[in-house]
Amino acid sequence: MSAPLNIAIAGLGTVGAGLVRLIESHADLLARRSGGPIRIAAVSARTRGRNRGVDLSPYAWYDDPVRMAREAPVEVVVELIGGEDGIARKVCETAIGRGRHVVTANKALIAHHGTSLAREAEDKGVVLAFEAAVAGGIPIVKALREGLAGNRLKRVYGILNGTCNYILTAMADGGREFAEVLAEAQSLGYAEADPSFDVDGIDTAHKLAILASLAFGTEVAFGSVHVEGIRHVSALDIAFADELGYRIKLLGIARPTEHGIEQRVHPCMVSADAPIAKVSGVFNAIVADGDFVGSTVFEGRGAGAGPTASALAADLVDIARGVRVPPFSVAASALVPLAPSPMDRHRGAYYIRLTVADQPGVIADVAAALRDERVSIEAVLQRARHPVEAVPVVMVTHETEEAAMIRAQRRIAALGTVVAPPRMIRIEPLSE
Amino acid sequence: MSAPLNIAIAGLGTVGAGLVRLIESHADLLARRSGGPIRIAAVSARTRGRNRGVDLSPYAWYDDPVRMAREAPVEVVVELIGGEDGIARKVCETAIGRGRHVVTANKALIAHHGTSLAREAEDKGVVLAFEAAVAGGIPIVKALREGLAGNRLKRVYGILNGTCNYILTAMADGGREFAEVLAEAQSLGYAEADPSFDVDGIDTAHKLAILASLAFGTEVAFGSVHVEGIRHVSALDIAFADELGYRIKLLGIARPTEHGIEQRVHPCMVSADAPIAKVSGVFNAIVADGDFVGSTVFEGRGAGAGPTASALAADLVDIARGVRVPPFSVAASALVPLAPSPMDRHRGAYYIRLTVADQPGVIADVAAALRDERVSIEAVLQRARHPVEAVPVVMVTHETEEAAMIRAQRRIAALGTVVAPPRMIRIEPLSE
Repeated sequence: MSAPLNIAIAGLGTVGAGLVRLIESHADLLARRSGGPIRIAAVSARTRGRNRGVDLSPYAWYDDPVRMAREAPVEVVVELIGGEDGIARKVCETAIGRGRHVVTANKALIAHHGTSLAREAEDKGVVLAFEAAVAGGIPIVKALREGLAGNRLKRVYGILNGTCNYILTAMADGGREFAEVLAEAQSLGYAEADPSFDVDGIDTAHKLAILASLAFGTEVAFGSVHVEGIRHVSALDIAFADELGYRIKLLGIARPTEHGIEQRVHPCMVSADAPIAKVSGVFNAIVADGDFVGSTVFEGRGAGAGPTASALAADLVDIARGVRVPPFSVAASALVPLAPSPMDRHRGAYYIRLTVADQPGVIADVAAALRDERVSIEAVLQRARHPVEAVPVVMVTHETEEAAMIRAQRRIAALGTVVAPPRMIRIEPLSE
Repeated sequence: MSAPLNIAIAGLGTVGAGLVRLIESHADLLARRSGGPIRIAAVSARTRGRNRGVDLSPYAWYDDPVRMAREAPVEVVVELIGGEDGIARKVCETAIGRGRHVVTANKALIAHHGTSLAREAEDKGVVLAFEAAVAGGIPIVKALREGLAGNRLKRVYGILNGTCNYILTAMADGGREFAEVLAEAQSLGYAEADPSFDVDGIDTAHKLAILASLAFGTEVAFGSVHVEGIRHVSALDIAFADELGYRIKLLGIARPTEHGIEQRVHPCMVSADAPIAKVSGVFNAIVADGDFVGSTVFEGRGAGAGPTASALAADLVDIARGVRVPPFSVAASALVPLAPSPMDRHRGAYYIRLTVADQPGVIADVAAALRDERVSIEAVLQRARHPVEAVPVVMVTHETEEAAMIRAQRRIAALGTVVAPPRMIRIEPLSE
């Protein structure tokens, strides 16, 4: 047995309490696997008195997490405060500055400042570890950084936000609309009172930016992620998707193209047969397409105290074992700027849903608008005619460039017979 | 950049040639990720002249792989010869004895001699790495050893043999019998001329024994794996399974029970909704149930030159990065003997298919036999009566002990109205 690894935990919400519980209940297991005990030495949170379901009295208490990061007699600081700047960042920078390893679950922080933190850590010879920042229950950071390190990655994509996946799954199962399901998710505690961080795709974009850096050896470039959320997905789109053999999922997708690296978050139509189409509820799934390994799928819980504590513990065991691997797969000093591929150069097939006046010639007008932008049509779906004025028409295009699709969409929207803004959903081919 | 990592490759079949191709084509990528180049210095195989699609002239050639392991100026020996004893074992022992790291794809060797090799490696302070030995395209060794190291594992199970999964998938898709599909798989190259290693479950058992050691910190105990293959699975069983909402998969399952650790390989009925039920063809999938992480699913290609080379490369990158982790999660000297749970103490639900004379009272006799062993029935399925003498009857039991089930099966087989040996398939509950 080697000397204990002493740690300080900053932030004692459900995840922090979960980590304390894991370390206490698994002391022997962790010691056997690490080669020595992992010991909590100090903790810090905003309020001391709160009942967190764990006994914190054995640990030194700090009101100020930055002071703890600076002064506590520990080798590792675990940052669970959250937020891309402010105290969380200060805690991590202080710990690194003092030559302490940092383990964090903070995806916003890593998405915004991951590269600079990794460089600081490298300069100081300490670890920066963030397995818990992406899909807690899935050891995907390690898989990309180590397990698939022999591959040139062709694409990494996934369902990275459990709230969105829960909402889309519930919409599909019940034929219900977004607003209704969101309200239900909020009442069940699956969605926040202010859901925009999740449903507008920001959370997914944070995680995607981290995955892209790991996969491609590029600086973390959250700013160049194209982000769309799921607010505009309607029950009608889900029903049409089903008819076409697709499911609608919010995916984060990163891949190198001839124009640079694409990083995009948006609702996608994916084949109903694809493994990722079957991932339901609050589960996350990530697919890595490597040139030698082929397609590898990882699925598990994305959030929650248990899965996140599991990821944090894995990082701690690594540190205790003496594992020192560059945080983003290559040395931080060797990360290159990410050259983003502009979204209007994206190529793919598109689903477009129109609400049109039920009169002769409409389809011909729409088809002409697409033809004028050289977008060719693969399929047209029209619901049985109702005795109403406006009817939905769906078209699926062959692969085309996004710019052309947007121009065509504008032409279509300008047609007098198109009575509502067209809805467009990208189709993502998932087989290699 | 640090000094190059020099490697020797013993065995140049499709996997060896795949590794050469990966290392040559990804030299820059591997150097960036490893912090220094990975260089092939020496190779060895049975026949020198054969065209392997790669140019071996830059590398020192050894006719004798054991001599290469002893004498080549390398830090790592990659063993791709195969076989549990003989030259493969000698190569690994020689390399370790000379203080060289060993990377191997040899599941039979690790299943039989993993513990002793790990102890020798530990004594010499070198790495023994075998990511490629289990489900090549899935970094599951690393996931169990590192990524899920914070969890007490409650169960690890998976589809570990692509040949069996291909056969079962094809049987289910086409309503065909085992022998016919096997012959087809052989003609397509998915099954060996002598298929027993795969279809009788031995290959799955090798991999399962390795996974169990990683998950539970026990010595590798291949000898105590209960092994049944898929030869007895019939098209009729698959059709009944479908009717009952199940799929039939050959699973390897390891889990701690009150009687010890169960390690078993046999056809299982699994819920058609479970992720693993949807894994088809030559894909592998592994599920790890951890107490904190919940259920985590890994899916990818199990075999083939590309996926296996990917796994070997990951081990090489780890070595180049200086990663030193105990091969089986805990120090080899700390591995404890595996206390096996006897198969007749297994508890679970059972599917039993009978072929009975079509006459009154048969079901009552069978039900009485089950009752006498205190096995209770959950469901009975009987096909519409045909104008034939014998009809199939299927019963599904509630959870019971295997010993009782076997006694009941004997009683049933002895009934005069039961005209063929009963067929029994265990039902595996997959939700936690």
